[in-house]
Amino acid sequence: MTIQHDPAVRGFASDNYSGVHPEVLAAIATANGGHQVAYGEDAYTERLQEVFRSHFGEGVEAFPVFNGTGANVTGLQSMLPRWGAVIAASTAHINVDEGGAPEKIGGFKLLTVPTDDGKLTPELVDREAWGWGDEHRAQPLVVSITQSTELGTLYSVDEIRALADHAHERGMTLHLDGARISNAAAALDVPLRTFTRDAGVDVLSFGGTKNGAMLGEAIVVLNPEASTGLRYLRKFNMQLSSKMRFVSAQLIALLEGDLWLRNAQHANAMAQRLRSAIDAGIAAGEITGVTFTQPTQSNGVFAALPDGVADQLRASFRFYDWDAARNEVRWMCGFDTEESDVDAFVAELARLTSR
Amino acid sequence: MTIQHDPAVRGFASDNYSGVHPEVLAAIATANGGHQVAYGEDAYTERLQEVFRSHFGEGVEAFPVFNGTGANVTGLQSMLPRWGAVIAASTAHINVDEGGAPEKIGGFKLLTVPTDDGKLTPELVDREAWGWGDEHRAQPLVVSITQSTELGTLYSVDEIRALADHAHERGMTLHLDGARISNAAAALDVPLRTFTRDAGVDVLSFGGTKNGAMLGEAIVVLNPEASTGLRYLRKFNMQLSSKMRFVSAQLIALLEGDLWLRNAQHANAMAQRLRSAIDAGIAAGEITGVTFTQPTQSNGVFAALPDGVADQLRASFRFYDWDAARNEVRWMCGFDTEESDVDAFVAELARLTSR
Amino acid sequence: MTIQHDPAVRGFASDNYSGVHPEVLAAIATANGGHQVAYGEDAYTERLQEVFRSHFGEGVEAFPVFNGTGANVTGLQSMLPRWGAVIAASTAHINVDEGGAPEKIGGFKLLTVPTDDGKLTPELVDREAWGWGDEHRAQPLVVSITQSTELGTLYSVDEIRALADHAHERGMTLHLDGARISNAAAALDVPLRTFTRDAGVDVLSFGGTKNGAMLGEAIVVLNPEASTGLRYLRKFNMQLSSKMRFVSAQLIALLEGDLWLRNAQHANAMAQRLRSAIDAGIAAGEITGVTFTQPTQSNGVFAALPDGVADQLRASFRFYDWDAARNEVRWMCGFDTEESDVDAFVAELARLTSR
Amino acid sequence: MTIQHDPAVRGFASDNYSGVHPEVLAAIATANGGHQVAYGEDAYTERLQEVFRSHFGEGVEAFPVFNGTGANVTGLQSMLPRWGAVIAASTAHINVDEGGAPEKIGGFKLLTVPTDDGKLTPELVDREAWGWGDEHRAQPLVVSITQSTELGTLYSVDEIRALADHAHERGMTLHLDGARISNAAAALDVPLRTFTRDAGVDVLSFGGTKNGAMLGEAIVVLNPEASTGLRYLRKFNMQLSSKMRFVSAQLIALLEGDLWLRNAQHANAMAQRLRSAIDAGIAAGEITGVTFTQPTQSNGVFAALPDGVADQLRASFRFYDWDAARNEVRWMCGFDTEESDVDAFVAELARLTSR
Repeated sequence: MTIQHDPAVRGFASDNYSGVHPEVLAAIATANGGHQVAYGEDAYTERLQEVFRSHFGEGVEAFPVFNGTGANVTGLQSMLPRWGAVIAASTAHINVDEGGAPEKIGGFKLLTVPTDDGKLTPELVDREAWGWGDEHRAQPLVVSITQSTELGTLYSVDEIRALADHAHERGMTLHLDGARISNAAAALDVPLRTFTRDAGVDVLSFGGTKNGAMLGEAIVVLNPEASTGLRYLRKFNMQLSSKMRFVSAQLIALLEGDLWLRNAQHANAMAQRLRSAIDAGIAAGEITGVTFTQPTQSNGVFAALPDGVADQLRASFRFYDWDAARNEVRWMCGFDTEESDVDAFVAELARLTSR
Repeated sequence: MTIQHDPAVRGFASDNYSGVHPEVLAAIATANGGHQVAYGEDAYTERLQEVFRSHFGEGVEAFPVFNGTGANVTGLQSMLPRWGAVIAASTAHINVDEGGAPEKIGGFKLLTVPTDDGKLTPELVDREAWGWGDEHRAQPLVVSITQSTELGTLYSVDEIRALADHAHERGMTLHLDGARISNAAAALDVPLRTFTRDAGVDVLSFGGTKNGAMLGEAIVVLNPEASTGLRYLRKFNMQLSSKMRFVSAQLIALLEGDLWLRNAQHANAMAQRLRSAIDAGIAAGEITGVTFTQPTQSNGVFAALPDGVADQLRASFRFYDWDAARNEVRWMCGFDTEESDVDAFVAELARLTSR
Repeated sequence: MTIQHDPAVRGFASDNYSGVHPEVLAAIATANGGHQVAYGEDAYTERLQEVFRSHFGEGVEAFPVFNGTGANVTGLQSMLPRWGAVIAASTAHINVDEGGAPEKIGGFKLLTVPTDDGKLTPELVDREAWGWGDEHRAQPLVVSITQSTELGTLYSVDEIRALADHAHERGMTLHLDGARISNAAAALDVPLRTFTRDAGVDVLSFGGTKNGAMLGEAIVVLNPEASTGLRYLRKFNMQLSSKMRFVSAQLIALLEGDLWLRNAQHANAMAQRLRSAIDAGIAAGEITGVTFTQPTQSNGVFAALPDGVADQLRASFRFYDWDAARNEVRWMCGFDTEESDVDAFVAELARLTSR
Repeated sequence: MTIQHDPAVRGFASDNYSGVHPEVLAAIATANGGHQVAYGEDAYTERLQEVFRSHFGEGVEAFPVFNGTGANVTGLQSMLPRWGAVIAASTAHINVDEGGAPEKIGGFKLLTVPTDDGKLTPELVDREAWGWGDEHRAQPLVVSITQSTELGTLYSVDEIRALADHAHERGMTLHLDGARISNAAAALDVPLRTFTRDAGVDVLSFGGTKNGAMLGEAIVVLNPEASTGLRYLRKFNMQLSSKMRFVSAQLIALLEGDLWLRNAQHANAMAQRLRSAIDAGIAAGEITGVTFTQPTQSNGVFAALPDGVADQLRASFRFYDWDAARNEVRWMCGFDTEESDVDAFVAELARLTSR
């Protein structure tokens, strides 16, 4: 196969625009050759369990799946009876970016709450946490949060613990969409289990793809009492890989050593570099009319630009509007973002916005 | 990541026990680096369309997905209104090996017909092709066949054409589960389009995984009038890869040149070698009590063994019972089966069954 | 509203072509007036629980629903996890007459077995009772039988007990579609609980509509451990009546006294009269070319007619072809079938088939 | 069956706490007797089509169903492809009172917008009317409004026309939940078609149960191009009545003459009487601390009460809290509410709230 693209081009559109980290690619090659039992009974998927336990402790079980929607929908479904509903922020990926898969495939209703920063609080949860026993209301039985959030913000460990306690007191369980969980751990500078299992999270989606894998996520059951039937759900939800060794190998490559952390730290640092440079540009008067709409706490930067600037900037660097009505844009950094990318981007922004 | 398995071990359990063909692995590496638009708007997925058109002709469209169940369920769903049903052989993968995904995720009923050899005929189709307009009956609107079948048998081009004509005359369309479509093309010694598009197939699942890919299948729409909404269905069925370039690259690696054919021809030849060697052993009286339950027309061999032999043989080579009640077993060959594997297997079978 | 139909016309098409028994209509009127809490918290639904307990014993719970499909799908769903499947005869109403609702709404796969007489046996169940723990197979967790069957045949008490024991030994539960349960009790001449709860049935659909109600069925949970969530399932399956008192009143009218039994006995007797008269006509040579395809054990008669006779007979009496390919027809009797209807029908059959 | 309730007791809890209007009961009796083809091919369902056409004009088609959830979910499903979503007010019955049936059974996502008065506007619709062609977003293809609303408010004819035009311009269609459509027509004092078909509504749920029927609603297709497959959807959604003549007869009884209007006018008048009497009591200082939270435009009155008053009042009259956090209650009047009920209720309220 001949190369079809220019591997020198990078932008700030999404952390899934990037490719595969070389160590992940090497792991795929290592897992190759010979025969391995299909559908998850291979040596790599077995090894992956040990790797997840080294991070999250004894008793956890990981179910590799293909993508984040598959992880979220299947994991949540395993936490819910057929009459269940999920409380989530209205900006949650499960609400806005999964094409209705939670409702259409998972069969559960989302009870959503508007937030400023993508983060639920116990008070916000309570807006939808009511009506148990009333069959006219889809039963709120799971709270789902995203860490780091779709808005680049971060829950503190205490905030997650408060949500977990709150949910548990009301007979609900807590799900964490960890598409960017590594970025969160890097930003909080704590082990993965500190803000998940130790804070009371019951089931999480562990994201590999956005952090250097080719494709591969895992549903991680931290509390076995909170999830049932994943073996079957993963299969009929069409998330069971036949040659699973290659999905598991990717996650091992990330998690066995510190690749997951290095990649996330780098992505976060690049976002911080971007934010700092623009802040400095604004302070110096070299960048004008740019404001930030969210704190920069992980690997995404959210800003509002002067009219027309977004499109001019996109002539050189790809990125997405977040809320076009208010000129809000999102800039994502990944494991492969280079300092020079950031610097060139900021320079171009300055060129476009200086008076 | 350290290696966890013995790459020298191979068996006859399934063509998805094998790994990734080196040329496919190379293609993944070639597609790496730099940024590419996620979710299918990358250069490789675009190139893949050309590759599929080179095989199936102008106007076809391919939707890469993760696995065969995803391809079958999503493809069939795109061919059916909500009230639709699918006529299939009772041995079809969609009926026996997909955990109920067609019903649970696709939302369509399967109307199944028993067969001896896994192949439908117009007469068999007619057992379930009735009741249109009667709302008490899930409406039979698609016929689904598998080529090569789950029993290792093969439809001739004329047989498929007869089924397509029959289906179309009754207002139904024809779906082909091509998890092993390359083996079928190799066995028939015709181009892929001869027994698909040219024979009247409307939508097919193109299988890459069993023929040397790491993971990757494609829903291929041969008749655009027979399928609608795949863009949306693939997404909410959780089959949309973010870094799709790596799925597409695998399929390009198979289909751009003749790797798809070489791999399939080899697998078929190994199955033929296995069949012939056992036939010879039987004729020579060196193998006794072994009979074949299906013709060997692609890469699978189905046989009935004397009592107890299957388990003895499995001490050395992994394979599956097909119908334990009649001592029937299935031996699959893959792109990586070696002549020495076959020879050693036959020698062991002879050792166990000679008087 | 002016009358639109001729109330003197009756046929043999279906026991749901008939109207409402006067005592049921009176009960509806009695329940009218004043306010009652909606959605099942009314005095009549409460009274109905007592009535069902008087028949089926302490601890049973009845959930009134609108129709038989609603009762079957909702009841079965309450017995199954999301990954469940149901073993049933291929002639079962849930398989052939519910428009795919079990699959599309219930989300469960049907594993069907062909039978001659519409009745499962432990041996027939075992054709599909396998594969537990294998996620590739929708898990067979419930056996569903129909009593009396769709073919007018009857399970004996011992036959049901054998099926229940067989199912329970294999970790499955037993569901009974009792759309014509009253006809079965009348034919067996035993109390309703003898061949249901006492024989090991876990959940049943109790049919009112075909036995003189206007509309109204009930899911009856005989074994509370075998069913969960019906309160919620009934609601979101759209089977929760707001003015439920009027559904419950109909079932009370049937079950409080012996109206259920009188109606069923009468319907059965009319079928027996039809069968006997034709048998006599055949013996006397007055009816020729007519054979019976099933024993006449409840309120349906299944026969094969000479070519062309069915359509001639339909000029006077409405009824359905059962298997047109073999000239098989079905004649159903109901609570309102009169002796003169039967006699006129047999006379016309004799006229058409005498030489 | 002996009577189980006190028919003299009435309250203000819901218009479905009431029973059946005598003329409806008479129509059921008229439709009784003899045989009629089941599942909707009876003379009453045919007559019903004429009756609906007399109100809504030529070309409309009505599909009787059992209840409002069945009508809404099935009707909306017929307007949507599998990837569709529905824009609705967050207070819509489909969002808060149907147990998740729209998502779980209909398979469509609700895109909800908060409102003060339960009414959408073109501006509010636009908050969710975006993202067409983006497979990551469930596609907004239908706008659903309720008339009169769940908050007792009313859309004017012009307001509905503006919504219809707005929806159509954006490629969407308009659904109207008419559980209380008769109350709306009575309040607006226009024919039913004026604010539905003539204003651009495509499909509606026509409510009979809350306006004097025993049970019975109809999906009415005003624009045949906006709905497909209702014949099949109604069946597998378990909303197809076998003895449909009795559902149709009820709707004929309401709609053939002016019973629908008399009942609705009466219920509205009683709500107005209630509102006026309390207003007068407040003006006279006999009722204190009571405020109204919505205008009283149909048959529901929404008010906020002083602490503790609601429970004291409920000792005599049943009604529901609407928003307990702000002491908001809902008082519903029905076709059977009597002037003396209202007067006694207001007197008791005055007794409880006078200083």
